[in-house]
Amino acid sequence: MSRLEEFKKFREEINQEIEKIDNQTIKRFFALDNQVYKEGALPEKTKELLGLVASMVLRCDDCITYHLWQAQKVGASKKEVEETMAVALVVGGSIVIPHMRRAVELIKEMDWKE
Amino acid sequence: MSRLEEFKKFREEINQEIEKIDNQTIKRFFALDNQVYKEGALPEKTKELLGLVASMVLRCDDCITYHLWQAQKVGASKKEVEETMAVALVVGGSIVIPHMRRAVELIKEMDWKE
Amino acid sequence: MSRLEEFKKFREEINQEIEKIDNQTIKRFFALDNQVYKEGALPEKTKELLGLVASMVLRCDDCITYHLWQAQKVGASKKEVEETMAVALVVGGSIVIPHMRRAVELIKEMDWKE
Amino acid sequence: MSRLEEFKKFREEINQEIEKIDNQTIKRFFALDNQVYKEGALPEKTKELLGLVASMVLRCDDCITYHLWQAQKVGASKKEVEETMAVALVVGGSIVIPHMRRAVELIKEMDWKE
Amino acid sequence: MSRLEEFKKFREEINQEIEKIDNQTIKRFFALDNQVYKEGALPEKTKELLGLVASMVLRCDDCITYHLWQAQKVGASKKEVEETMAVALVVGGSIVIPHMRRAVELIKEMDWKE
Amino acid sequence: MSRLEEFKKFREEINQEIEKIDNQTIKRFFALDNQVYKEGALPEKTKELLGLVASMVLRCDDCITYHLWQAQKVGASKKEVEETMAVALVVGGSIVIPHMRRAVELIKEMDWKE
Repeated sequence: MSRLEEFKKFREEINQEIEKIDNQTIKRFFALDNQVYKEGALPEKTKELLGLVASMVLRCDDCITYHLWQAQKVGASKKEVEETMAVALVVGGSIVIPHMRRAVELIKEMDWKE
Repeated sequence: MSRLEEFKKFREEINQEIEKIDNQTIKRFFALDNQVYKEGALPEKTKELLGLVASMVLRCDDCITYHLWQAQKVGASKKEVEETMAVALVVGGSIVIPHMRRAVELIKEMDWKE
Repeated sequence: MSRLEEFKKFREEINQEIEKIDNQTIKRFFALDNQVYKEGALPEKTKELLGLVASMVLRCDDCITYHLWQAQKVGASKKEVEETMAVALVVGGSIVIPHMRRAVELIKEMDWKE
Repeated sequence: MSRLEEFKKFREEINQEIEKIDNQTIKRFFALDNQVYKEGALPEKTKELLGLVASMVLRCDDCITYHLWQAQKVGASKKEVEETMAVALVVGGSIVIPHMRRAVELIKEMDWKE
Repeated sequence: MSRLEEFKKFREEINQEIEKIDNQTIKRFFALDNQVYKEGALPEKTKELLGLVASMVLRCDDCITYHLWQAQKVGASKKEVEETMAVALVVGGSIVIPHMRRAVELIKEMDWKE
Repeated sequence: MSRLEEFKKFREEINQEIEKIDNQTIKRFFALDNQVYKEGALPEKTKELLGLVASMVLRCDDCITYHLWQAQKVGASKKEVEETMAVALVVGGSIVIPHMRRAVELIKEMDWKE
């Protein structure tokens, strides 16, 4: 199973566990997290790239994986993702590099269109 | 003097001091920081919004001020900036709120077109 | 005007500006941020101390000010706040100290019961 | 071996290595880290929840594992842990989610009383 | 009063308040924070530069002010401080820049020997 | 294969992928990251220890691994590394501990001279 497939599987399984938790705040936060990337004044693609750059500077591998997956789905090009990673690198510094390495490895595995 | 004007003045003055420092790494980093927001596969506007969201989740007021200033210059609408702030809020959580308050205050002062 | 009064005034004024923003995510996030500190399985006092320790280790002065204000309102003792600050100090390290200094200054100004 | 058991084993083994290091600061810091969660004005349970929320917003998986283990030992209910996680989610934002997923997985494995 | 003098004054005053707090953990942490920069296998100068780079990448202005003050006292040259700032810039990225600007302003005020 | 060997292999492989990316900013950032640790006013050893303490307080395991490897190469003693870790622990707090555990494990594996 590829790294992306593993991530999707774990994410789905545990999100089901989280849904069972009887806590309004948690439920509403998850709804918000879904809603914020929908098209508005900004197109979905831009929002996924915003999610990606934020995840990279905060150095959250699972969040990076998620936004790469979504960015590909909504039609971001490899070149656009690379420029987004470059912004993350300059803003966040060399501590972003290990996360960028894992992102580049994943992008290769995802067989991204140019 | 408005908050934005004060920021610009301090930034300009100290950047001149920094330019006097005889250190290749610092000089090159500042060049990179300039270059990364130039138009490429992504338009300047998107890049400024990437810079803005990254600055908000990392909670850097001066960086937020800078990217709001640039975003206005390259034609981002108020609505686009608001959606970018919403992404920052969900990704970064309630600790982003104080920085968002100062951003909203600045936007008001900047007399932004809709 | 005391530092707490200044904070309250700025917060109120800008929150009114934020309410004018026509963005569902931002509105819902603010509602959540309000809801999460309400009494549940844990009493309000404990929740405010949770908010305080999180704000300290994330080094957010405005958030610390807010939770000190709320903690006093819901009856936390000075001693309980001090023990919460001690946890923040050990978890977050010496970079928490400047924020703790400002917290201690504020507590003095707030005329806290023992 | 469960994830908690693995963590305990690694932690114990390496703590023994760390104890061999002839460095007063390191020794004293470890003593402090032990002392700060002891009962005082606040009960142990509250202190472990403070440790948990701080670990979640700082996104430290091993620290989360440790405080879940301790929280269970000193009698925190599942509901109390869930409310603590909800505070962490709102304060720290969606980047806390991957750590919350691993926490929920661990809680399931720990067979927690309601 | 210069910015450094203001910092020293506030620091001294509030540290006296903190000393009055009857909390063993806080007292011991402050003792540790003092002890760790003393000469050992590494000279004091190197330790102050370690403190400086850590403070810069964690973006703590008061901590930066403190370590610049100490670094000057134990004989670090301006050149050594500049190279330390360059490491912080590359490791921590452009969000370090606002803190570096304030550091450069302070260094100018401190009248540092070459 | 030891943990250090695995790290080196992954790093080399992915750095080759990154080199293929046609993005000037990324290329220049990697050049800068290389340049900044070269001998200048400060010797290489001090610079590697600066890189190490910054990596520890920012809690980046791969960065810690890299700087331990380099620190050994340029002749840092185990004692100097331990004092550097002590600074990281005090500045960054107990959330540094899990990263310090993995560092201590690696140091053991690296068979470091006293």
